[in-house]
Amino acid sequence: MRVYNFSPGPAALPVEVLERAGKEMAEYKECGMSVMEMSHRSKMYTEIHEEAEVLLKELMEIPSNYKVLFLQGGASQQFAMVPINLYKSGKADYILTGEWANKASKEAGKVLEVSIAASSEDKKFSCIPESFDFSSDADYVHITSNNTICGTRFLTEPDTGSVPLVSDMSSGILSEVIDVSKYGIIYAGAQKNIGPAGLTIVIIREDLLEVNKYAANLPSIFQYKTHADAGSMFNTPPTYSIYMAKLCLEWLKAKGGVAEMQKINEAKAALIYGFLDSSSLFKGIADKKYRSLMNIPFTTGDDTKDKDFVKEAALAGLVNLSGHRLVGGLRASIYNAMPVAGVEKLVGFMKDFENR
Amino acid sequence: MRVYNFSPGPAALPVEVLERAGKEMAEYKECGMSVMEMSHRSKMYTEIHEEAEVLLKELMEIPSNYKVLFLQGGASQQFAMVPINLYKSGKADYILTGEWANKASKEAGKVLEVSIAASSEDKKFSCIPESFDFSSDADYVHITSNNTICGTRFLTEPDTGSVPLVSDMSSGILSEVIDVSKYGIIYAGAQKNIGPAGLTIVIIREDLLEVNKYAANLPSIFQYKTHADAGSMFNTPPTYSIYMAKLCLEWLKAKGGVAEMQKINEAKAALIYGFLDSSSLFKGIADKKYRSLMNIPFTTGDDTKDKDFVKEAALAGLVNLSGHRLVGGLRASIYNAMPVAGVEKLVGFMKDFENR
Repeated sequence: MRVYNFSPGPAALPVEVLERAGKEMAEYKECGMSVMEMSHRSKMYTEIHEEAEVLLKELMEIPSNYKVLFLQGGASQQFAMVPINLYKSGKADYILTGEWANKASKEAGKVLEVSIAASSEDKKFSCIPESFDFSSDADYVHITSNNTICGTRFLTEPDTGSVPLVSDMSSGILSEVIDVSKYGIIYAGAQKNIGPAGLTIVIIREDLLEVNKYAANLPSIFQYKTHADAGSMFNTPPTYSIYMAKLCLEWLKAKGGVAEMQKINEAKAALIYGFLDSSSLFKGIADKKYRSLMNIPFTTGDDTKDKDFVKEAALAGLVNLSGHRLVGGLRASIYNAMPVAGVEKLVGFMKDFENR
Repeated sequence: MRVYNFSPGPAALPVEVLERAGKEMAEYKECGMSVMEMSHRSKMYTEIHEEAEVLLKELMEIPSNYKVLFLQGGASQQFAMVPINLYKSGKADYILTGEWANKASKEAGKVLEVSIAASSEDKKFSCIPESFDFSSDADYVHITSNNTICGTRFLTEPDTGSVPLVSDMSSGILSEVIDVSKYGIIYAGAQKNIGPAGLTIVIIREDLLEVNKYAANLPSIFQYKTHADAGSMFNTPPTYSIYMAKLCLEWLKAKGGVAEMQKINEAKAALIYGFLDSSSLFKGIADKKYRSLMNIPFTTGDDTKDKDFVKEAALAGLVNLSGHRLVGGLRASIYNAMPVAGVEKLVGFMKDFENR
């Protein structure tokens, strides 16, 4: 029996998508083969590839002066590719709002000079900074739009003027409506709201594709332009992961698109936050103002009780509710594929646990 | 109805594996979720991850002083990571035996000074060079063990003395028994003989993991040591592709392992080469001495007839028989998952075509 899976990523996928993929595994439509077995240059595969791109552009309303790239290596590889590809003066501003933002800034520090424009580390990353000390000559400003571990999110984009804004949207992409034109680059590992691990999405404004002096001295696979010029077919793309992403994007479109999904996500988050705010046992960890719609860390304040909760919840079919190993406690990740019923069952279980 | 798929990659997978994966898609064993939905840190996924590694070590008899890495980015990313990670004197020798060897040498040329120790380009890559002009101070020697486009393979490893031998085995790995201890690094994209596209295998001798001055100045994701130290969990690995690889490795083990598979591969190749050598219409392209067991390019010598052959074969359920766009003609790729029955049907069809 399927469980409700609150994993922060790789995360739950829509069961309808999984069932369809299962049926199509050994033979896709009338093609006589699995999607996994298709040459990436074949007509049947390129249709899937192009449909995935068209769907993403439509769902996110991506302007025509942006390219969508299907890459590999996860957000972590983007921590490296962003500074390599946007290097101009050799300086960049990072806003530190959690562990992943820290990692991104450290990897970038191998390539260029990193300035910390703001940090909420002194508040244990429980909030998003409100004022920023931007450099005048930064090549870009980097943010992490949603913070998976501490459960915060940017409510609006910081105003970076003409300096390109780069956002790691791994855990927030497609969960709420955003204005892509405010960004220079958006990147995201697929394994939370897009599809399986092993696919990375990069959305890049075309003027940022130019190869700079730093990138020109590195192998061409590390240049965005290589992938953009080849339509993400410079080398064999992760074809099956792109097919799964296409199925998930079709599912999202059928649900009414991102605006409708945002309403559902707000309702799901409100169910949990509402209970946390009224509970005498559980309490939320993030600052109320900046609460994430996707990742909700909470705790009883008692390590033993937290652990008991995780164990008992799992027996009730509610799994992966441990907090991140760096911060402990509990966490419910409720990406697009988590149905309202799963959240209702979780809140019901929390009430029962509190009453016992 | 499933076809016989002679694609050079992504390529045919064992139908038994696909059927099992299809059944397990929405729920793996008693886990309540798909493998795609599992946290990469969960016990159920790490078992799959470790089993895949153990199986590969067993099937290839990998010595204990080697690490197996599960990476992303394909062989093309290894074209960059090899020179970055083996940089010492800043020189490397490349043996050019085809288009992929050329690409590898060009990418390496961005990082260090490349010497061509031998090339068969003057013979249109129809053979493997027999003498090599190795540099005395090369950091490594790079070969492409099996050449997918022109259909040749190294029959034995060139003797590089104490200089590490690096081999791109993307289209040859697991097809015949090799002695891993002769290599410093073996790498392979998975999409031919291992599993789906999106997974890259690197087998590296432990002494080569040390971080050199060149790699130390780059983001840590480009260092093999980062991935080796983290057991290929530095960041989220392509979990589902690793699961599929595990199923394919189990299948190979059940077939008797690499030595047994080599016998089957030799028999399959002999069926096609035997017919080509007796045919009055078709002829093989590669030098007989260096013929690949995996990729068999051939031609009628007449472009129109070649195209007719591809079309008519497809109608008979024998697909993806076009040669590579760079060389034209015809090509049958017959990796491990291609059953003898598929090769017999192909040869039968070739005979009929010749008789018409």
